[in-house]
Amino acid sequence: MNIGILGTGVVGQTIGSRLIELGHNVKMGSRTSNNANARAWMRAAKENASHGTFDEAAEFGEILFNCTSGKGSLSAIESIKTANLNNKVLVDVANPLDFSHGMPPVLTVCNYDSLGEQIQHERPLLRVVKALNTMNVDVMVHPERVSGQHDVFICGNDNDAKSLVTMMLIEWFGWETVIDLGDISNSRGMEMAVPLWISLNKKLGTNIFNFKVVK
Amino acid sequence: MNIGILGTGVVGQTIGSRLIELGHNVKMGSRTSNNANARAWMRAAKENASHGTFDEAAEFGEILFNCTSGKGSLSAIESIKTANLNNKVLVDVANPLDFSHGMPPVLTVCNYDSLGEQIQHERPLLRVVKALNTMNVDVMVHPERVSGQHDVFICGNDNDAKSLVTMMLIEWFGWETVIDLGDISNSRGMEMAVPLWISLNKKLGTNIFNFKVVK
Repeated sequence: MNIGILGTGVVGQTIGSRLIELGHNVKMGSRTSNNANARAWMRAAKENASHGTFDEAAEFGEILFNCTSGKGSLSAIESIKTANLNNKVLVDVANPLDFSHGMPPVLTVCNYDSLGEQIQHERPLLRVVKALNTMNVDVMVHPERVSGQHDVFICGNDNDAKSLVTMMLIEWFGWETVIDLGDISNSRGMEMAVPLWISLNKKLGTNIFNFKVVK
Repeated sequence: MNIGILGTGVVGQTIGSRLIELGHNVKMGSRTSNNANARAWMRAAKENASHGTFDEAAEFGEILFNCTSGKGSLSAIESIKTANLNNKVLVDVANPLDFSHGMPPVLTVCNYDSLGEQIQHERPLLRVVKALNTMNVDVMVHPERVSGQHDVFICGNDNDAKSLVTMMLIEWFGWETVIDLGDISNSRGMEMAVPLWISLNKKLGTNIFNFKVVK
């Protein structure tokens, strides 16, 4: 498939490389068409990788991944022509983290709203599925690096989009359990769980861990 | 031991009854000394149960549990004489939930601060240990009701207090793994995890579940 990645940081690069490894074509988008990260990633990925603006990546992708920093997500989305987003599935893995006050970061939006909801509100015909934001990027695309069973949460308003994302998570990345929390308002809880992840990260001294829901 | 419970709702009653079952003496405190919930609970609990004001419960207890509604926690603490709190260990199980806007509730404090921190700030010589706020009260005192391994988080500034609470959680309530996240600022992450719990509660249709951290 042709997949557009918004964002050129570690998350975008890691997901992009994994998708290429799985045989897909990936265009990485950034604010400018000449981003140094994107160029370096494209050279390393060799085949099936390209880069361009956010709008070009969105136009290219049948499915999109939002891997921008949470603070930059809305302006990235706003820079894309509506026609290149309408009816597309956007997997929103971003967290609205603000590191400007030092560690730990705070959320730029929470409690009454969330980044996932803001993106959905900004582009009503885009089919936003919040997913994969409650773990490190290496765990996102290699869940087997955490031993034993553990869970990935998703939410969104469009059931077909969630079915597609569930398939991708299971068939492509190797997830065993995908928990659909309901509509996009549940991204509030998914994003607000990140400060606990940050506390655990500091405590455990590793990025390679995840949550499991036990009944 | 003599234990003071602040709050007369389901959480206070359930923890209070479990402590009495374990052989402890419990005084339940409320805003007034003649609270109907507390009287009913005392009659049902029969022996070793008493009730009074927040201040009387705090004076009675060698260890205290904050089981007030999060919105009422600070005023409850403020109504207690400093001498009845200094050097005591307070297990803060409350969540700052505001249901006045309907479901799901929002947090009255989050992101830049937390209820656990506010209580610690209000009474610097009280040894606050945030614990047990990320699960239903039946799971708090009967972790075996969830099958398999799952975790309880604690945090606080005083290591001796955390050792005592860890002992209580393991020896008294039967927890297997207690994860100490560090100082009281980590109660921010513990409280902000509650909206995800609420989403999961709706999805799973049961209160009997919990998080496990998998490495």
